[in-house]
Amino acid sequence: MKMDTITLSHGGGGRKMHELIDSVFRKEFADTALDEKKDSAIVNLAGRPIAFTTDSYVVNPIFFPGGDIGSLAIYGTVNDLAVCGARPLYISAGAVIEEGFPKKDLLRIVRSMAKAAGKSGVRIVTGDTKVVERGACDRIFINTSGIGEIYYSGLSQAKIRAGDSLILSGPVGDHAVSILSKREGIGFSTAIKSDSAPLNALIRKILGVSKRLRFMRDPTRGGLATTLNEIASGSRFSIAVDEAAVPVRDGVRQACELLGLDPLYLACEGRVVLVAAQDDERGILKALRSDKSGRMAAKIGSITGDYPGKVYLNTIAGGRRILDMLSGEQLPRIC
Amino acid sequence: MKMDTITLSHGGGGRKMHELIDSVFRKEFADTALDEKKDSAIVNLAGRPIAFTTDSYVVNPIFFPGGDIGSLAIYGTVNDLAVCGARPLYISAGAVIEEGFPKKDLLRIVRSMAKAAGKSGVRIVTGDTKVVERGACDRIFINTSGIGEIYYSGLSQAKIRAGDSLILSGPVGDHAVSILSKREGIGFSTAIKSDSAPLNALIRKILGVSKRLRFMRDPTRGGLATTLNEIASGSRFSIAVDEAAVPVRDGVRQACELLGLDPLYLACEGRVVLVAAQDDERGILKALRSDKSGRMAAKIGSITGDYPGKVYLNTIAGGRRILDMLSGEQLPRIC
Repeated sequence: MKMDTITLSHGGGGRKMHELIDSVFRKEFADTALDEKKDSAIVNLAGRPIAFTTDSYVVNPIFFPGGDIGSLAIYGTVNDLAVCGARPLYISAGAVIEEGFPKKDLLRIVRSMAKAAGKSGVRIVTGDTKVVERGACDRIFINTSGIGEIYYSGLSQAKIRAGDSLILSGPVGDHAVSILSKREGIGFSTAIKSDSAPLNALIRKILGVSKRLRFMRDPTRGGLATTLNEIASGSRFSIAVDEAAVPVRDGVRQACELLGLDPLYLACEGRVVLVAAQDDERGILKALRSDKSGRMAAKIGSITGDYPGKVYLNTIAGGRRILDMLSGEQLPRIC
Repeated sequence: MKMDTITLSHGGGGRKMHELIDSVFRKEFADTALDEKKDSAIVNLAGRPIAFTTDSYVVNPIFFPGGDIGSLAIYGTVNDLAVCGARPLYISAGAVIEEGFPKKDLLRIVRSMAKAAGKSGVRIVTGDTKVVERGACDRIFINTSGIGEIYYSGLSQAKIRAGDSLILSGPVGDHAVSILSKREGIGFSTAIKSDSAPLNALIRKILGVSKRLRFMRDPTRGGLATTLNEIASGSRFSIAVDEAAVPVRDGVRQACELLGLDPLYLACEGRVVLVAAQDDERGILKALRSDKSGRMAAKIGSITGDYPGKVYLNTIAGGRRILDMLSGEQLPRIC
């Protein structure tokens, strides 16, 4: 019976979601832009390539340490444009609000969106407001779509080759743990704030120093492990991750141990994972670390040729194991 | 207490919604594109004007006579672009789905979206899927955003002047009555189908014959009366509507009498109201009537100068009364 209905795992960012998207949306919409499987569609407008993306935000709680649904909705969409080599320009905002929602909370969220847009250098130019009866939605959902101008068109999974370096801009799991601690009312010894932040300025800096950046993606739902699988899937290369090199804050590690979670599957909302030619590695790391948000940037692995299409982990214990895409949902409504 | 929370009337399309948008969204986002109050934002991309718009669809029921939430989500956004003189090109689709939603219903909706996109000549190029727990949303909400290329840039409320003609492309209220009959399980003697349809081809035809088309809008939430108030509000002109001239189907009139509704406040999803120089009136009506969807097109009034900023009705009984913007919600979740 479960096969015939939508389950939470279909929205979790992992295998089930990819299956649903492939078998329903991608199949029926049948558009080449969707087949690219990028964070934004790259389409032509008046002879120029532009990036276009959309995301609905249903995060619970709507206010959490380090952010809220409003700033998340701006940064998430800004980042989907930025990782495609686009300069984010215009954002649309569509809210679905539950009857009885406090106006002061709405104002707080809208102000947070305005501030986040200012910080990201984007304009919120169009919007829509719907209200549904009490019980027909959980407080507020926000959709943002974004348009950006492509200023760096060389990014492609097809350019990735064995020997390339795998770089991560900062520690994983902060966002997911901040949501979880607020939602479940769990206090960890170290307070963890969401990493939710705009990546466009940081990425612009990196593209200024690297001429052989192959590909980027921000590891959101499904976490780093799932994102790496999306990159490797169907390719001729494999991705080797050095477990000891992946930056994880102590508080996140503690929370994971307590709750039986794997930090490699936890959503980030302000991190970027990059694949670049090994020669560019030092320059990229230097550029990242010169930025406040990139201080903990690290080379976390490399591209190999031994297990085409796969991602594997060289463990701290000295072993090696396949790092699969998230199966099932780890944490619903994380973004 | 009601003042401090969001009510259904804040999403109804009428006065309360405009107040909320002005006092919260427009104020905080503070963007000139929002001040234009058009159905789409007109923004600059690489030196060219483009139209950008968004809408979230929360219609209940999700399947109704003449359409479903999927086709509605495509046509609604296509129409918001088309009335701004844009050629709709690219559409994004973001779904929020309730856990337990039948996969076959999702497939039906997605197929309907694909078909509607084909019929409108737009591409669905990017998407997002979120799943929330049972009870956290009512089945499915869909956001679509759209991008179009402006091919006719002369449309502006500022161009409207006394003596201009007011033209409507077809009968009002079909969409609202189709939703209502399905939702409330009321059968009317004449089955009414939603008018939900793409307007871009029809509008292109009109722009081919009229050089002095001033302004267009599609009368959705809040109906024709509200749309006309949006056009007149803050201007130096007034709009005189000839009640006898407004096309309304018998079945819609019956439903309105039975339920105490005014057809002038009922949402349409495939009609356009046009203001044009009187000299262009005949050509526009001819073009409209040559199209299947425009067969019942009519001149329904004209622009006057006697009550600046107001809309008034010359009634069938020979009287005259102010036609105000919808106050409160007439029908929640109509789109």
